[in-house]
Amino acid sequence: MRNNDEILALFENYLAQIAMPKEPQLLYEPIIYSMSGGGKRIRPTLLLLACEAFGGDATDALGAAAAVEMFHNFTLLHDDIMDNANVRRGKPSVPAQWGENVAILSGDAMMIYAYHLLRKVPEDKLARIMDIFTPMALQVCEGQQYDMDFEQRQKVSMAEYMNMIELKTSVLLAGSAMIGAVLGDASEEDCRKIYRYALELGLAFQLQDDWLDSFGTEEELGKKIGGDILEGKKTCLMQHAMSHATEEDRDILRNTHLDSSLSDEEKIARVKAIFERYDASHTILRMISTRFERAIAILDTLDIASERTEYLRVFAENLMDRKK
Amino acid sequence: MRNNDEILALFENYLAQIAMPKEPQLLYEPIIYSMSGGGKRIRPTLLLLACEAFGGDATDALGAAAAVEMFHNFTLLHDDIMDNANVRRGKPSVPAQWGENVAILSGDAMMIYAYHLLRKVPEDKLARIMDIFTPMALQVCEGQQYDMDFEQRQKVSMAEYMNMIELKTSVLLAGSAMIGAVLGDASEEDCRKIYRYALELGLAFQLQDDWLDSFGTEEELGKKIGGDILEGKKTCLMQHAMSHATEEDRDILRNTHLDSSLSDEEKIARVKAIFERYDASHTILRMISTRFERAIAILDTLDIASERTEYLRVFAENLMDRKK
Repeated sequence: MRNNDEILALFENYLAQIAMPKEPQLLYEPIIYSMSGGGKRIRPTLLLLACEAFGGDATDALGAAAAVEMFHNFTLLHDDIMDNANVRRGKPSVPAQWGENVAILSGDAMMIYAYHLLRKVPEDKLARIMDIFTPMALQVCEGQQYDMDFEQRQKVSMAEYMNMIELKTSVLLAGSAMIGAVLGDASEEDCRKIYRYALELGLAFQLQDDWLDSFGTEEELGKKIGGDILEGKKTCLMQHAMSHATEEDRDILRNTHLDSSLSDEEKIARVKAIFERYDASHTILRMISTRFERAIAILDTLDIASERTEYLRVFAENLMDRKK
Repeated sequence: MRNNDEILALFENYLAQIAMPKEPQLLYEPIIYSMSGGGKRIRPTLLLLACEAFGGDATDALGAAAAVEMFHNFTLLHDDIMDNANVRRGKPSVPAQWGENVAILSGDAMMIYAYHLLRKVPEDKLARIMDIFTPMALQVCEGQQYDMDFEQRQKVSMAEYMNMIELKTSVLLAGSAMIGAVLGDASEEDCRKIYRYALELGLAFQLQDDWLDSFGTEEELGKKIGGDILEGKKTCLMQHAMSHATEEDRDILRNTHLDSSLSDEEKIARVKAIFERYDASHTILRMISTRFERAIAILDTLDIASERTEYLRVFAENLMDRKK
């Protein structure tokens, strides 16, 4: 059973030797650029760890692992068009570098190439793995659409928000873990459990991402604090505060980011003060802990020796520790 | 064995009863809108006819037929963004109706949904059919990228042009026919032959599309004559004329569509006169006949009774007869 670092190294090696076609250059070059952009390889790592936890060999699951990573990078590429994002992982985004049309089309090719990679799983498991992958991929699109819908809406409930982040972020982790488990010949029940483990973990991760944007340090977050506040994003902190605040405070939450008389620092301070007034920070921290602990607890219920879950535990801890 | 009309009716019925999810509305409504936009259902019809020609039952191939139709409509949807096209089949295009972001994302969901439909083929054939579908889908993206590349280039050879239309148009017909043949339990050799039949037919079809734009009637083309000329598109007529014309005539071919002192009618007449000077019309008509006859001739070489190919012959004739 490989540990987390060995799994990552194995995956990076595999990825490096995938020979994408060379022509047409404007179709395939942006794909290679995105895939070598230095992501954290969270989803393929989880897939491969799950495979080995159940006694499988990660080398047999590398195609599926590359498929989920390719799919994830495809979603980032198309999201960057939709969000007009010029920077991705400290480099120009694909639409910024090559223009929107190239970004649309190479994103499409990435999506199709993900199925090409997925096809490499053992033939007797292909149908079952497609039955996990395809609904998962559709749910990610649904999550992205809800996210865009919410930008246009005045009010979003916490339940709606949780459903959105589950679709947009968690199901891809959950599906990756489940595919790994299937490839490792886990029982049906363990496949469902490992799905749930990754789903809870994904929610904890996404909630923490929101929390860090206001209450973390620049070092933990990896970028400037307060970006979500300045964009007026409806994060979980915002949902919580909005659903508890007075009408007056709600106005401040809604409008501060639009107030051109304030500096960025003043905007951030003003919104955070209201978050604190309604105990948003502690509430979200409690939600994060609950989800994280649920995820870890599920590992103990799997029908395998408890030492086999060690690296999945390490994975969960690494995922939540943004310091690096 | 169902005839062409029966196959189409069967397919339309199947399509009408597919229950897409309802929410999020902005993700799924554009998909339903595109799929019910009244296309000619060329690719699924071919797939189902091929299946029955080899003795299969089209009802077992409906998922795969819907997959190729869904994929085709996905390419149209994303093409409409890339081409800034506001109208599709006489109605507002998806980007015109819902905006670009919705069009990107619902296109993505269509692509994924195509795999959901493809998954419905018998499990023992799934791997083989994915091995046809996925490379085909990638080739269509390659064709679209070459098409965009060619717009930026001064000179495109006829061989490059033929390769581009093969990728962009023909391989989807060819792959559809081959998937149908696999589902009808055709031999490996017949699968390759039926692929070739549809590939040649697709080339004839695309060449004719270019030819009709200059030399057809508005009734045959279904829209105004000369659109390609006014856009300065590098069609096969243009390639042929460019590669035979004097430098002076090449200048006219290159620049007429940009000349604001000319009316549309004058531009069309001027370019067509040069096409005629280099015998472009007859040359392309001969190319169309050659491809079409090759396609038909392949049908006689299949390892099935010749009456079983009757509806594939009718399909080829219907495809080339644009009068309707």
